[in-house]
Amino acid sequence: MKTVSIVNVTSYTGVELLRMLAGHPEFVVTSVTARSNAGKRLDEVFPQLAALRYTSAEHAGAVNPAMVLTEEPAQTDLAFVCLPHAAAAEAIVTLLERGIKVVDLSADFRLRDVQEYELWYKHTHPAPALLETAVYGLCERYRDEIERADLVANPGCYATSSILALIPAFAAGIIEPDVIIDAKSGVSGAGRGLTLSTHYAEVNEDVSAYSITGHRHLPEIIQEVLRAAEAGEHGVANAPRITFMTHLMPMTRGILASCYATLKERVSTADVRALYERYYANEPFVRIVDQPPHTKWSYGSNFCFIHPFVDERTGRLVVFSCLDNLVKGASGQAIQNANRMCGLAETAGLSMIAVYP
Amino acid sequence: MKTVSIVNVTSYTGVELLRMLAGHPEFVVTSVTARSNAGKRLDEVFPQLAALRYTSAEHAGAVNPAMVLTEEPAQTDLAFVCLPHAAAAEAIVTLLERGIKVVDLSADFRLRDVQEYELWYKHTHPAPALLETAVYGLCERYRDEIERADLVANPGCYATSSILALIPAFAAGIIEPDVIIDAKSGVSGAGRGLTLSTHYAEVNEDVSAYSITGHRHLPEIIQEVLRAAEAGEHGVANAPRITFMTHLMPMTRGILASCYATLKERVSTADVRALYERYYANEPFVRIVDQPPHTKWSYGSNFCFIHPFVDERTGRLVVFSCLDNLVKGASGQAIQNANRMCGLAETAGLSMIAVYP
Amino acid sequence: MKTVSIVNVTSYTGVELLRMLAGHPEFVVTSVTARSNAGKRLDEVFPQLAALRYTSAEHAGAVNPAMVLTEEPAQTDLAFVCLPHAAAAEAIVTLLERGIKVVDLSADFRLRDVQEYELWYKHTHPAPALLETAVYGLCERYRDEIERADLVANPGCYATSSILALIPAFAAGIIEPDVIIDAKSGVSGAGRGLTLSTHYAEVNEDVSAYSITGHRHLPEIIQEVLRAAEAGEHGVANAPRITFMTHLMPMTRGILASCYATLKERVSTADVRALYERYYANEPFVRIVDQPPHTKWSYGSNFCFIHPFVDERTGRLVVFSCLDNLVKGASGQAIQNANRMCGLAETAGLSMIAVYP
Amino acid sequence: MKTVSIVNVTSYTGVELLRMLAGHPEFVVTSVTARSNAGKRLDEVFPQLAALRYTSAEHAGAVNPAMVLTEEPAQTDLAFVCLPHAAAAEAIVTLLERGIKVVDLSADFRLRDVQEYELWYKHTHPAPALLETAVYGLCERYRDEIERADLVANPGCYATSSILALIPAFAAGIIEPDVIIDAKSGVSGAGRGLTLSTHYAEVNEDVSAYSITGHRHLPEIIQEVLRAAEAGEHGVANAPRITFMTHLMPMTRGILASCYATLKERVSTADVRALYERYYANEPFVRIVDQPPHTKWSYGSNFCFIHPFVDERTGRLVVFSCLDNLVKGASGQAIQNANRMCGLAETAGLSMIAVYP
Repeated sequence: MKTVSIVNVTSYTGVELLRMLAGHPEFVVTSVTARSNAGKRLDEVFPQLAALRYTSAEHAGAVNPAMVLTEEPAQTDLAFVCLPHAAAAEAIVTLLERGIKVVDLSADFRLRDVQEYELWYKHTHPAPALLETAVYGLCERYRDEIERADLVANPGCYATSSILALIPAFAAGIIEPDVIIDAKSGVSGAGRGLTLSTHYAEVNEDVSAYSITGHRHLPEIIQEVLRAAEAGEHGVANAPRITFMTHLMPMTRGILASCYATLKERVSTADVRALYERYYANEPFVRIVDQPPHTKWSYGSNFCFIHPFVDERTGRLVVFSCLDNLVKGASGQAIQNANRMCGLAETAGLSMIAVYP
Repeated sequence: MKTVSIVNVTSYTGVELLRMLAGHPEFVVTSVTARSNAGKRLDEVFPQLAALRYTSAEHAGAVNPAMVLTEEPAQTDLAFVCLPHAAAAEAIVTLLERGIKVVDLSADFRLRDVQEYELWYKHTHPAPALLETAVYGLCERYRDEIERADLVANPGCYATSSILALIPAFAAGIIEPDVIIDAKSGVSGAGRGLTLSTHYAEVNEDVSAYSITGHRHLPEIIQEVLRAAEAGEHGVANAPRITFMTHLMPMTRGILASCYATLKERVSTADVRALYERYYANEPFVRIVDQPPHTKWSYGSNFCFIHPFVDERTGRLVVFSCLDNLVKGASGQAIQNANRMCGLAETAGLSMIAVYP
Repeated sequence: MKTVSIVNVTSYTGVELLRMLAGHPEFVVTSVTARSNAGKRLDEVFPQLAALRYTSAEHAGAVNPAMVLTEEPAQTDLAFVCLPHAAAAEAIVTLLERGIKVVDLSADFRLRDVQEYELWYKHTHPAPALLETAVYGLCERYRDEIERADLVANPGCYATSSILALIPAFAAGIIEPDVIIDAKSGVSGAGRGLTLSTHYAEVNEDVSAYSITGHRHLPEIIQEVLRAAEAGEHGVANAPRITFMTHLMPMTRGILASCYATLKERVSTADVRALYERYYANEPFVRIVDQPPHTKWSYGSNFCFIHPFVDERTGRLVVFSCLDNLVKGASGQAIQNANRMCGLAETAGLSMIAVYP
Repeated sequence: MKTVSIVNVTSYTGVELLRMLAGHPEFVVTSVTARSNAGKRLDEVFPQLAALRYTSAEHAGAVNPAMVLTEEPAQTDLAFVCLPHAAAAEAIVTLLERGIKVVDLSADFRLRDVQEYELWYKHTHPAPALLETAVYGLCERYRDEIERADLVANPGCYATSSILALIPAFAAGIIEPDVIIDAKSGVSGAGRGLTLSTHYAEVNEDVSAYSITGHRHLPEIIQEVLRAAEAGEHGVANAPRITFMTHLMPMTRGILASCYATLKERVSTADVRALYERYYANEPFVRIVDQPPHTKWSYGSNFCFIHPFVDERTGRLVVFSCLDNLVKGASGQAIQNANRMCGLAETAGLSMIAVYP
């Protein structure tokens, strides 16, 4: 049994961790923190947690709905940090000093290049030294490093769906560096903070693009497809030139990334499909499917569904990739990383399939 | 380990059983049937099941996505029957003869009075003799009988939320027989069959009442609140006079029953609340809450949330009750019954809490 | 041609007035105000107004998208006041002194009894003297008084649907004073201000009751059904005892009020229907329909659809009533009142039917 | 005053024509047909039409809710044909012989090349001779020809948004032939016919791509951007190579086309913006906006909002274009064409702006 804390549990990623950890066979949540709700009980902030009946702190999968939110996390084996960027890095320095392993759900340690970070996030990095040791938390690429890491940077939701869609093609060297990603997300990705653009009457029955001059998940995607290309069959690669446009959908959960790339040489859909099947053959949470996936297939689950094919008229590679932004795109992937970091089965506590319809 | 089959797995209640049984610690699904899709694989009909990776038929919680749908169910310890009424009764006669225990998700064995059944369902009951032995599958009332039963009639979704909302008050004899139930349901309750009233563009951004001259869950509700009253403190009761109006909501899952009753004598909200707390003190899946519950609190889970209070201006009892129509209102409750019938813990496989937000 | 201003145009009722007035044959909008956006152009705040091309201030139906929002309204023939309560009353005192007729969309002048107002709104009424002259803006009851009024109190959205549903029965004296109103509203009724309960991910796929200890539209409803009863066939009436429960629906627009009342004597559905048909025979915006109405039938239009019937099993009167909370429940009704106050046809600018589907 | 008929009025485009024509200053609807509902009254099929009160057949804007649906259209000045392809062409032959002008909302006369039509629609064209005289009904390109035409082929909804987004760039010759269109549509575009993919519980909370091997609006788009290029500054053009992927959104109305093209030479966003502004300077229904448009801005209106800009990192042209698929994408554009064909102001009856929120 391992103890874990959730830092800033009142975020959507925080409460999603509670939901999933309540069924985990090895972890027990012994500490939860909040910035503005400290002193309240968990089930005061999230009344649906009244469903939980607490057994004991010695019991895996135990989440105590009467647990009181504190300002600082207690000593645990591992902490999930759900703070906004910058605040996350500051908290993590202390957690690591206390000997607590950390999965960081913020963006603070995703980019290896501190200048790139400061360019996109518009402030000085609070802990640049940790960038050396932080591991990008994509098990499909780095599970061995994650197993040995004390600090794992959990990938962004858009980034996870886009990277998983593109790395087999980049690793195999079959596409040109020019790529267009047209990504569509449900509203929960924007978090629990109140804004006019997440106000019900504004979002409902509406679709629009946003952050069109540069979404912060773009540098992550570029970094990781380049690393995949460099680690791939040809060993070297040109910098990808990616147009990445994000769109808000009138739904709560789900991301669909529609990716368009130019093939270096004409290949068949069957060959591309086989390449993707091989690449993800042993992955517990990636599925190559034979039709365009629906975001609903991943609702509430840690699975990513990918459909690659060749547009016959133009010879372009098109890849559709979808997942639940709060699970494989955030809290589920965080648990997947934590499982690795704690020497557990990577799939522990993550077997639930989608809630459908 | 117990083997189970799902008869008519292509219904929403059928596929919901698959989702929940895939995580069940004791059941293994060894047979699935369909009327029009026989011969197909499960993951052809429901591609999201590609998430499942099959271990073995000896393994609890195993659902094989490659299982082929058949016309007739194989021999199993228990069968979940998801057929429409009439068709269900016919199939059940055979299943029971083969020594297979049955949880019937249709309406065929819910009403104890065959005339009442024939009045509401407009056809001759196919197996009236079984009405004697069938048990109404509400564990909160009949768990001992369910434990010994071979045939359990799983309650309707509206009926479950309404009955759970009202029986503490009827059993205590604190309300008059006149009750109004204004019930609101998500669209999945209407099933997977295509109708104009479940066509997306018709339902979205719309609320309306339907079946206003008599919804078929009404006789069930009357039967059960009367039985609760008769089994209650006063032993006798007048026939309830219930106005039951159902409304369709633009959402997929969830039922909220808003119940209005006249108190025989003025009591305080605190006293009513205490009465409900006592009545459900040991129930694993009912929670009395101190604010109006949200259907979202039960999304994907087997819990029912109830908030009783007294409207101070008029002295009326008002009870709000909500649940997920496909879980506690159908497939989750069916598993709860099956657990009892097979001598397992009533809560086995049912611990997941709501997917929120 | 008449000039009008919209005070606090950045509210949902304010921008809805703009939409409807842009097609009005007699009014021209010459002034718009805002509290926090003063100095901006209309089409900066509402970019969809770029659709409008301005002709001239001499042209009826003209809305100038380049008009600059000011803090104070200019001199006009009439002002629509979309401020919150209390702030509205204060602004209206000045407007009336300047000789400007006022339609007040707030609650400040709806209740005739100042004590009742102060009980429900928890503050001292800023202008109690005006309560004497203010007219309740329900044309179906008071169109002659409205024609002569300088100050009209536009009814609340829930109140409009509930009152229109109940007054024929109260006026005819066929029901007991005990009534239950179970009302369901889309989210836009809560306005454009940001709250967790109007945050997309919280409301979507959710239904719940709210304000259960007393919604502020209740005293309005009580006042008006009592006045209708007193003005009715029997001339006197007992105070109604109304339980009024409001529910939030996952949709933007629309209210459905489901009303339940006990009939003094058994009457047939046909007789009730005939009574309602007669009551509203000459009303331009009320329609009695022969099936439960859908909120979608009124989407974007000023019509109210009502379906009264007798629940045969219990002998209760049930009335369903629906409308668009932003049109007949707010801005459309405000224009209907303004038309009367300015001597125009009551229906001027209000002929658009529902946007369906 | 001109008389018009609506052939197959029970489609969503048919009933949308009714909504808009009810406010038209010159047209009167004197005949409506249906295939399966002949003999019923309009307000039996669409109860919301009870809002309409009929004046007389001599009155423009008159829609009679008591009009009986017939199998064959009466003699009128113009007919709107809302039949599926093939059936439309057959009906149109007769209508033209009877001297009735036709706006065809089907795809039968959109493609100038009969072989292309037969390739995409998989059947022999029923009236290939009419392809010579039919005019593609995009007023922004062909208003003079439309004015003289007896048969106008109303463009597809996806096609309208995509073509309007791309023709300024193709006409100016600033982009390469390679273009990606990632288009997103609400569900009403699929019509009123029942399918599992438009069943509420399947579509709600879901996004997916569909028709990925070739959507039938693609050849229309290719035809029209090529014609625009050939008519443009350079006079000749290479055949465009367009990848066109359509996605279903969980909403009723609205299309957003996100278009990606490679610029021949680097140009600034300001220059592109100026080019688009000039191209559409005099268009009544196209607006170039300075931020990504929301589909909601066009809800219920005939306007198309376009935002072109240059992605600075990659030098690509990105154009977002949105409209209401049932208005500018179907029935509104059909009226715009009919206005031209009948010598009326192009904007007659089309001034309503979006219903927001």
